Amino acid sequence: MQAGKPILYSYFRSSCSWRVRIALALKGIDFEMVPVNLIKDGGQQFSKAFQALNPMKQVPTLKIDGITIHQSLAIIEYLEETRPTPRLLPRDPKKRASVRMISDLIASGIQPLQNLSILKKVGEETQLTWAQNAITSGFNALEQILQSTAGKYCVGDEVTMADLCLVPQVANAERFKVDFTPYPTISCINKRLLALEAFQVSHPCRQPDTPTELRA
Amino acid sequence: MQAGKPILYSYFRSSCSWRVRIALALKGIDFEMVPVNLIKDGGQQFSKAFQALNPMKQVPTLKIDGITIHQSLAIIEYLEETRPTPRLLPRDPKKRASVRMISDLIASGIQPLQNLSILKKVGEETQLTWAQNAITSGFNALEQILQSTAGKYCVGDEVTMADLCLVPQVANAERFKVDFTPYPTISCINKRLLALEAFQVSHPCRQPDTPTELRA
Repeated sequence: MQAGKPILYSYFRSSCSWRVRIALALKGIDFEMVPVNLIKDGGQQFSKAFQALNPMKQVPTLKIDGITIHQSLAIIEYLEETRPTPRLLPRDPKKRASVRMISDLIASGIQPLQNLSILKKVGEETQLTWAQNAITSGFNALEQILQSTAGKYCVGDEVTMADLCLVPQVANAERFKVDFTPYPTISCINKRLLALEAFQVSHPCRQPDTPTELRA
Repeated sequence: MQAGKPILYSYFRSSCSWRVRIALALKGIDFEMVPVNLIKDGGQQFSKAFQALNPMKQVPTLKIDGITIHQSLAIIEYLEETRPTPRLLPRDPKKRASVRMISDLIASGIQPLQNLSILKKVGEETQLTWAQNAITSGFNALEQILQSTAGKYCVGDEVTMADLCLVPQVANAERFKVDFTPYPTISCINKRLLALEAFQVSHPCRQPDTPTELRA
């Protein structure tokens, strides 16, 4: 076992890092943060030291309990299994399926198609349209799914892993100037979640590595 | 509760559908298959009837126990929670984290970047290179990660959800003519898995909707 606090390798603007920061905040887990700047020095995630830690060269990465975990949802599931309070997955397997379905819709169906490394490949001219298409095509589906799963939040009235995926994806959508008129359910849930402390302390505008001009 | 067998909406060549077909085979779950041809008629997933079932317009989709689940990993996790034998996730939370990390690496980090709808957007001229880059960049990381997690299979000596993701992704890599020289661990595990009955009966070359010329 590794002694000491968990260490989160994070970038203020990474939506996948934000998911994990919310989980840590909700569960009241004290941790140390090591910022990895995905832009500076050509991307610090490409340094030899970081690649040795995470061969995918991505944040978030969490060192905890003597192991190193990559992939935000794998990290959140591990936290849920080892630090179960408060729950981020409902007890009912059918509701858990809804939570994971929404989480995966965002984590596999939207985020990877609009992340920094893909947009670089797509090229500057078309990247805004590309990102908007990826997000609206996912949000069109999500808006419809939420109409049958949502209560106060994405699935029922408790905050779940799905909500940890929703809020950072909405923030990305706002950065890419997506029109939210077709997404009243998404907008309403997002607003409710942003009122919660765990979503505020973990917000990209309030991280140790947030540039001064973006702080709020 | 819905009466009758689970219904899997599947496409023979969809790597995400194959993941679920392996899970169903391993767990000995009897099911009905409804083929959804992603090419024919401009893509049957875009039909109104299918969109009503899955607003993401993707396979796999599973109707089971009165609910409809999309997203392959959410489906597999539900099967694991409701039909736990044989296990597809180890008991030890740290090993479960490894399984989910590898599964997510493939399901979020590789597959979405080389699937049919993205390659269409990328355009015919560059799509082979695009797909190869997405796969090799993920496999470079995976090869390294497997060196510390693998036994006979991806994580230890039991078949897990990670293996259900690996084999279909390797098949895609082969279709895109990826050079496997740098991936001895991936190749070796893939070969072992393909020898198992559940991976054979669920294989794309042996589905009800496999075109005659691709059957084996």
